[in-house]
Amino acid sequence: MIKKNPAQGNWEEVLEPGAKKVKKQVLIGEEESAPNFIMRIFEIEPGGATPRHSHSWEHEVYVLSGKGKVYAQGNEIEIAPGDALLIEPNQEHQFTNPYSQLLCFLCLIPRQFESGKLKNYNKYIKEEKKK
Amino acid sequence: MIKKNPAQGNWEEVLEPGAKKVKKQVLIGEEESAPNFIMRIFEIEPGGATPRHSHSWEHEVYVLSGKGKVYAQGNEIEIAPGDALLIEPNQEHQFTNPYSQLLCFLCLIPRQFESGKLKNYNKYIKEEKKK
Repeated sequence: MIKKNPAQGNWEEVLEPGAKKVKKQVLIGEEESAPNFIMRIFEIEPGGATPRHSHSWEHEVYVLSGKGKVYAQGNEIEIAPGDALLIEPNQEHQFTNPYSQLLCFLCLIPRQFESGKLKNYNKYIKEEKKK
Repeated sequence: MIKKNPAQGNWEEVLEPGAKKVKKQVLIGEEESAPNFIMRIFEIEPGGATPRHSHSWEHEVYVLSGKGKVYAQGNEIEIAPGDALLIEPNQEHQFTNPYSQLLCFLCLIPRQFESGKLKNYNKYIKEEKKK
């Protein structure tokens, strides 16, 4: 058994183009030998947003604190603590925080994308930023 | 995109032998066409416990409110809000709530076990209870 708590972990800024005032921690991921899916936690500051993008894997989200909006495939909805979301594969989506409090949520993805494509994508973004 | 909130859902009592004062809701499961993994939420009342058991799939847990204890493979640890846990496949484990507040946590599992073995197992338990 592995126990982690975001209060003791390090928040990493999300560097993907279009991300603004977004931080994340991987709570249960490759380092913890997650067998099938990865638990991450995100914080979006007031005025912040994740990139509007789509990809071939789903998100399963649980809102922990704060309020925000989620755009997905032409619809925008309000989110608040206790809301669970499924954002389906290939749906264009974006999280925004137009409110005055920090928005905090869990966002889980299948493991293959953290360990494969997505990891390489993050590395690529970091290298692009250095140029 | 699908949004659900446990405040609007129905809590179902966990009927598995050994479970005591435990309720659950499937937030993102087969009905929501979860592609790879299932998000469930559990409540354990004071004095309650999940069965001490093991199985071939992992749990990824996030504690939302209350306090409790988790036994896994010979160790017992305290859990509190914000704790994320990985209980590895085949680890014998049990959640208990010896405290005075409701313990509430998310517990995610790979999809194949909700739709396959586990679903049949729950059906089996229900039928056994009717006898």
